[in-house]
Amino acid sequence: MTKKPWSGRFTKETDKLVEQFTESVSFDLRLFEDDVRGSIAHAKMLGKQGIIPRQDAEAIVAGLGRLIEEYERGELAFDISLEDVHMNVEKFLRDRIGSVAGKLHTARSRNDQIALDIRLFLKREIPAARELIADLQKALIEVAERNIDALMPGFTHFQHAQPIYLGHHLMAYFWMFQRDRERLSDCLKRVDVLPLGSAAFAGTTFPIDREFVAKELGFSKVSENSMDSVSDRDFIVEFLAAAALTMAHLSRLAQDIMLWSSHEYGFVELDDSVTTGSSIMPQKKNPDCAELIRGKTGRVYGSLMTLLTILHALPMSYNRDLQEDKEPLFDALDTVKMSLQVMALMLRTAKFNSERMREAIRGDFSTATDLADALVRRGVPFREAHAIVGALVKNCIAPGKGLEDITLSDLKEVYPDADLELLGCLDPECSANARKAAGGTAKENVARQIKQAKQLMVDG
Amino acid sequence: MTKKPWSGRFTKETDKLVEQFTESVSFDLRLFEDDVRGSIAHAKMLGKQGIIPRQDAEAIVAGLGRLIEEYERGELAFDISLEDVHMNVEKFLRDRIGSVAGKLHTARSRNDQIALDIRLFLKREIPAARELIADLQKALIEVAERNIDALMPGFTHFQHAQPIYLGHHLMAYFWMFQRDRERLSDCLKRVDVLPLGSAAFAGTTFPIDREFVAKELGFSKVSENSMDSVSDRDFIVEFLAAAALTMAHLSRLAQDIMLWSSHEYGFVELDDSVTTGSSIMPQKKNPDCAELIRGKTGRVYGSLMTLLTILHALPMSYNRDLQEDKEPLFDALDTVKMSLQVMALMLRTAKFNSERMREAIRGDFSTATDLADALVRRGVPFREAHAIVGALVKNCIAPGKGLEDITLSDLKEVYPDADLELLGCLDPECSANARKAAGGTAKENVARQIKQAKQLMVDG
Amino acid sequence: MTKKPWSGRFTKETDKLVEQFTESVSFDLRLFEDDVRGSIAHAKMLGKQGIIPRQDAEAIVAGLGRLIEEYERGELAFDISLEDVHMNVEKFLRDRIGSVAGKLHTARSRNDQIALDIRLFLKREIPAARELIADLQKALIEVAERNIDALMPGFTHFQHAQPIYLGHHLMAYFWMFQRDRERLSDCLKRVDVLPLGSAAFAGTTFPIDREFVAKELGFSKVSENSMDSVSDRDFIVEFLAAAALTMAHLSRLAQDIMLWSSHEYGFVELDDSVTTGSSIMPQKKNPDCAELIRGKTGRVYGSLMTLLTILHALPMSYNRDLQEDKEPLFDALDTVKMSLQVMALMLRTAKFNSERMREAIRGDFSTATDLADALVRRGVPFREAHAIVGALVKNCIAPGKGLEDITLSDLKEVYPDADLELLGCLDPECSANARKAAGGTAKENVARQIKQAKQLMVDG
Amino acid sequence: MTKKPWSGRFTKETDKLVEQFTESVSFDLRLFEDDVRGSIAHAKMLGKQGIIPRQDAEAIVAGLGRLIEEYERGELAFDISLEDVHMNVEKFLRDRIGSVAGKLHTARSRNDQIALDIRLFLKREIPAARELIADLQKALIEVAERNIDALMPGFTHFQHAQPIYLGHHLMAYFWMFQRDRERLSDCLKRVDVLPLGSAAFAGTTFPIDREFVAKELGFSKVSENSMDSVSDRDFIVEFLAAAALTMAHLSRLAQDIMLWSSHEYGFVELDDSVTTGSSIMPQKKNPDCAELIRGKTGRVYGSLMTLLTILHALPMSYNRDLQEDKEPLFDALDTVKMSLQVMALMLRTAKFNSERMREAIRGDFSTATDLADALVRRGVPFREAHAIVGALVKNCIAPGKGLEDITLSDLKEVYPDADLELLGCLDPECSANARKAAGGTAKENVARQIKQAKQLMVDG
Repeated sequence: MTKKPWSGRFTKETDKLVEQFTESVSFDLRLFEDDVRGSIAHAKMLGKQGIIPRQDAEAIVAGLGRLIEEYERGELAFDISLEDVHMNVEKFLRDRIGSVAGKLHTARSRNDQIALDIRLFLKREIPAARELIADLQKALIEVAERNIDALMPGFTHFQHAQPIYLGHHLMAYFWMFQRDRERLSDCLKRVDVLPLGSAAFAGTTFPIDREFVAKELGFSKVSENSMDSVSDRDFIVEFLAAAALTMAHLSRLAQDIMLWSSHEYGFVELDDSVTTGSSIMPQKKNPDCAELIRGKTGRVYGSLMTLLTILHALPMSYNRDLQEDKEPLFDALDTVKMSLQVMALMLRTAKFNSERMREAIRGDFSTATDLADALVRRGVPFREAHAIVGALVKNCIAPGKGLEDITLSDLKEVYPDADLELLGCLDPECSANARKAAGGTAKENVARQIKQAKQLMVDG
Repeated sequence: MTKKPWSGRFTKETDKLVEQFTESVSFDLRLFEDDVRGSIAHAKMLGKQGIIPRQDAEAIVAGLGRLIEEYERGELAFDISLEDVHMNVEKFLRDRIGSVAGKLHTARSRNDQIALDIRLFLKREIPAARELIADLQKALIEVAERNIDALMPGFTHFQHAQPIYLGHHLMAYFWMFQRDRERLSDCLKRVDVLPLGSAAFAGTTFPIDREFVAKELGFSKVSENSMDSVSDRDFIVEFLAAAALTMAHLSRLAQDIMLWSSHEYGFVELDDSVTTGSSIMPQKKNPDCAELIRGKTGRVYGSLMTLLTILHALPMSYNRDLQEDKEPLFDALDTVKMSLQVMALMLRTAKFNSERMREAIRGDFSTATDLADALVRRGVPFREAHAIVGALVKNCIAPGKGLEDITLSDLKEVYPDADLELLGCLDPECSANARKAAGGTAKENVARQIKQAKQLMVDG
Repeated sequence: MTKKPWSGRFTKETDKLVEQFTESVSFDLRLFEDDVRGSIAHAKMLGKQGIIPRQDAEAIVAGLGRLIEEYERGELAFDISLEDVHMNVEKFLRDRIGSVAGKLHTARSRNDQIALDIRLFLKREIPAARELIADLQKALIEVAERNIDALMPGFTHFQHAQPIYLGHHLMAYFWMFQRDRERLSDCLKRVDVLPLGSAAFAGTTFPIDREFVAKELGFSKVSENSMDSVSDRDFIVEFLAAAALTMAHLSRLAQDIMLWSSHEYGFVELDDSVTTGSSIMPQKKNPDCAELIRGKTGRVYGSLMTLLTILHALPMSYNRDLQEDKEPLFDALDTVKMSLQVMALMLRTAKFNSERMREAIRGDFSTATDLADALVRRGVPFREAHAIVGALVKNCIAPGKGLEDITLSDLKEVYPDADLELLGCLDPECSANARKAAGGTAKENVARQIKQAKQLMVDG
Repeated sequence: MTKKPWSGRFTKETDKLVEQFTESVSFDLRLFEDDVRGSIAHAKMLGKQGIIPRQDAEAIVAGLGRLIEEYERGELAFDISLEDVHMNVEKFLRDRIGSVAGKLHTARSRNDQIALDIRLFLKREIPAARELIADLQKALIEVAERNIDALMPGFTHFQHAQPIYLGHHLMAYFWMFQRDRERLSDCLKRVDVLPLGSAAFAGTTFPIDREFVAKELGFSKVSENSMDSVSDRDFIVEFLAAAALTMAHLSRLAQDIMLWSSHEYGFVELDDSVTTGSSIMPQKKNPDCAELIRGKTGRVYGSLMTLLTILHALPMSYNRDLQEDKEPLFDALDTVKMSLQVMALMLRTAKFNSERMREAIRGDFSTATDLADALVRRGVPFREAHAIVGALVKNCIAPGKGLEDITLSDLKEVYPDADLELLGCLDPECSANARKAAGGTAKENVARQIKQAKQLMVDG
């Protein structure tokens, strides 16, 4: 076993079980490059400020550079008995440049160092996640545009409600994901703060230059309070909450896709390349990706709950509980990134069956509101109009008629002043295109949304 | 039982149990004023656009105005068989102005109406919550300023680590709450969008003017997609996630207060007015408010989980599941608002015992890092310095000495080149004040933080 | 304001805000009868043991009896400034029998008293919840039996998989709810332990007889450790976890019902009495109850998370955080009880459309496995048989055929040795009834399940 | 890429991204031995029933036996493109015994197979977890017994309340963990049911003998409904809820240990072997293991929430979402097992400082209740006695006295009839030992608890 760097006051070695229980290198190893980048900036600053001799700083920076190269070539073997990524890096460095490596840890602690690493990580990963959301948004636009004429039943309460355009339905998701991207941008503001220089939790006695380090690493702010800095994981919770909402949106879209690709709906056929079969039922073609996205939503919700529990009643300032922040973060990030990509692929390769969609509107009474609206325009108070049309629907149900089968005399039974114009508003295309008010499903509105959406994708 | 306004096509009455199960007026009644305000703006617009006769619009607006007055006088009796606040308002209106009331529901649905009501509610309540956070921040500033000289042990891992100023510890919370306020502002951007005009989910066939309604109600944007608008509850999740973090912060502060007011610590005495006694143990003075804040954190976490579960795999677009959004929202909002006020009161009335705090530093070895830092400044690599001081600590433990009891010869045992200057850095005040780098605990830094914080409170 | 019973050592009155924040009588008032019952048993024991004079005990018991009567007549006015139900009861008692009331609190504390009250409450409510589950199970049996011949598509991955009997599908839920009842019984074992006698947390110095109290109140065990007793809320978590699973089951059944009652499926029509209409779309008939059950699942999940968070890192022994146990418990219990009743009503009044179900099997390839199985019985290894049938399905898709349209020559194309017997196994009824192995969907199995289920309902 | 065994009807290959997204072998590989054991039993049954030729069954059983040996020698290389552990096993088998391997999958599906594997896994792992709980219980008994005379302050509301014995405090945890073991036993009843034979979800057409398989694999029951069997994950939720409670208990104990080992309390010193140091503060000795246990509690809570979310509104029957059950299960199981072991180690190696504990009682007024009780025994109603002692405490606070400093004349000031006997009950040892009623802290009670606990450990 390697001697612990903090073993000065200890008389016994760490128990093997405890070593295994407390180690983090098996997962924080993922922060290796962030950790080294942070150390390079720190070393440069130490040299610049004369806290350590300039040539020592240069040796350290050079050594760290070599580590990155070796890492990229897969040549570094991490050691669990060294606890975490920081101690592994220090050991690697010492092996390469000798005891001067020990000077790197001047004026900092693992507490501010790990806070830095996670922030550097998220400064890279949040934009990457935003990119993947944007790509899914583009896929939605593509599919909406390709199927611009597809009319389908619109649903509320799982029931046919009013005819809508498929593009309108798909663009609803566009706006959800747009909010997700905004939320990530807002989150990034709180990630973009340099914690390094807080040392263990009380600040440092060395004349460090935190603004310099912030500039080197691309942070726009320096944290204001060292105690807060080392124990602040709010930005992870905020990211997880944003990720949870993105997964909620994906799960809703997945649910729609599963419904649409079912035997009963038949609105869409998923591509063979994104579906799987059954080991026992030869005819099956399963929307596994959609199911997994729906299921993986639970995983991200769970990670959010994990972090919130950790923060519950945690006393000031740094406590080891915070080490448990990384695995849920990594898992949630990977899950949301993969799910976004798979969803975009699923959409882009899907075949929408516009005939089947149009056909599904038949007999579903979904233009009933249009008739009520027309009555209102003729001066009938809305509530009465609603009752008249309700009666008409009731009259249709027994003989198995749809609204498309209604005659003028049928209409006169419930509204004696009926005429042909009134009858006309029962047509699904007319119904949808009459919804011209901002945000409505009229085709011209869908086209406008698509245009606006494309502009937003350009603006970033 | 009152006839349901949607009963046209139905042949049976709603079962009593179902009525009780599906009603929402027992809680959405809280949105009464928001609902009526929204209706007033809607009626004005209907009149302005000529969708309903101008005099009808005026009658409706006047009637709605009367309702608000009656409500404020506590004269309105809500009826559960009318399902929800909207139907109750409509009934009240009909009772007062007759059947013209039926025209109010033209060009809208309860789906966009309830979305509007919650948004109006949060547009009021989020700033109110921000105000309460700000007041707690002020309380923190006051207490920090009043105890500007109080030195205390700083903790990491629940163990004495380095001496810090109480003000530094308290200001750490200031910054957490500052982030909470920022987060609420960001959330507000996504609340501040008018959903009305989306009707059931597909938009409306009437020539409505949504920009006019938005202006009337103070919204800065109009929603882009009607399907998204009626089923979007993301802003509630976002608010709940922000509230959960605020509660996490409050629970951490509550935990600190409980520790500090314990017999063992004795750093603070809570005021009689904010503590309670025991029905069995006459000597007890319990920090119940702090305990309840810690406990109520779970409640807000639970509400967040409730909403996220509701959104999981919810198909498009409006589904009745969404009715379950209000109780967790109301409960979380009330909980966080009350907890903020109670915490501010607790802090403002507390007596901090600075002597006891200062005394607690004795014998805790918490200036050990300062000695190590000083050795580094004399050229000892940090890791060696760490080991030297570790050995010194070990030498102290057996004879029960603290670092304040160390003599020069003790020091020379572990570091032969020791001198009196080195010995000096073991003084707690020197230790804290040496941490002058940005964000550190030095008194001048704390003072600077307070000044900056005050400015932030002015800026809002 | 009423003087607090614990105010001996206090010099200031409780702040009004704090009073409101810490009071629990607004919700623990629901435990009134349990509280009084517990006090009656306690008073009897105090008298029997001579801890208080027998005539005092009798006066107390009589006074408490009067309170119950007044409560039932709605004559008691609870007072928030008295904090909780216990203090209110004591005040009521004192008002009626004078200062002897003060002796009731001998040898106990509110800490063990509230633990007792919740346990008494759950000893009543868990069996009540079990009864409601049982009633829903009976509804499932009834519907399964009434529709014993209804064949329908069975689903995996949201896709038609193999024909099954509706009764088989419904009975799957029977067994889920059976496990829920078992789980509640197991939970009850841990509820059924008397905590009274633990006093504040350390036990009491009075010679109490806990076995006597346990017998009076119907507990089968007395708790073993006073510190554990006053802070044990495990049984609430266990109940909430059981309730969460019951809600998960209900949400799954609700989801099936929503699918089945959709326009696309049309397998079932819900009764008018359990559905609601739309304020805007006159034709709508919405499965609101099913939607709300699905949504309310989130509520119970949230309550579970609330309790778990409260217990996280709670130090020994009683802490005021535990007061937060009751609202989530009450809410979850009410939610699950209502949801069970509504689901049973919905099922019993639903009309299943067996023709539509049978029709839905056409063209869905769901007997493909049967053909593969038959090939296996003729010696083809399963994996090869799977491939042969997969090819047959692929051949059908282009010309739009179903398996019911297959001819012998079609079959010979993929399997040259095919004969008419092989063709026969493509019949859906044959397919389902061939699944005779224990647990399979064959009609005789469904009938056997129903018989067994009825027996379980008799056994309790 | 390997050809998928279900690819008959597919015309395109699975997308690489999809393959990666849907594969489970990277984690269900952990079920390898359970999977093979299940297959051996299945193959034996197929042979016995004549569903496949006996010699084929024997070849398969022999081949599977070889796989286990190769696995134990680490010779098997799993392939991600084969999706899951089942497909990998089948491929391994085919490579070893040829196409007869294809017959193994007769009369079963991966749906019932995976359900079997997890149940076999938990049938092994739940008893293993129970063993670890039992070992921790033994550690608690050992420490309680070793420190049988240690008197310490007992806490409620984080405040000194009454003197108790350390053994009493520790044994409180014993009973929590005892309930945890009971709960796991109850959970095991619902795990111990054979799902195999349910095939895809509708049962099988082959004349299988499920009772035989159950006996081979040690299950005491066979599942009743095939649709339920393949989609039932209730037992995992139940296990996770039980694990969450165990973690809650561990987090409470960890919190107590952190408090006790703090500078302020000083009741216990953790062993060097279970603590770690600081990279920056040489004097630190941190209770990292306790902190991590507290933190890891969030992880298990999160896993529970993950599973519950997955089950929310999941339609019948098997859906791919269920694949997401394994990682949270494995993670929670590993977490709770490790935490239990580490806690036992931490306790067994800790040094309790009974002098410091005894000393901590001085001046804490924690025998106030005893004086009140004594007054009650002299006929003073409890509420009055409480007020008298409250006044006494108030009199002490100003001059800084404790109850141990009270003189008879001090006592007479608040209670004129006071005598020396009354004064005697202010002694902490007397106080604790007077709590003789069942469950109280008297030393004889603690001894009795320990004896009873030891018996329970023998009974298992």
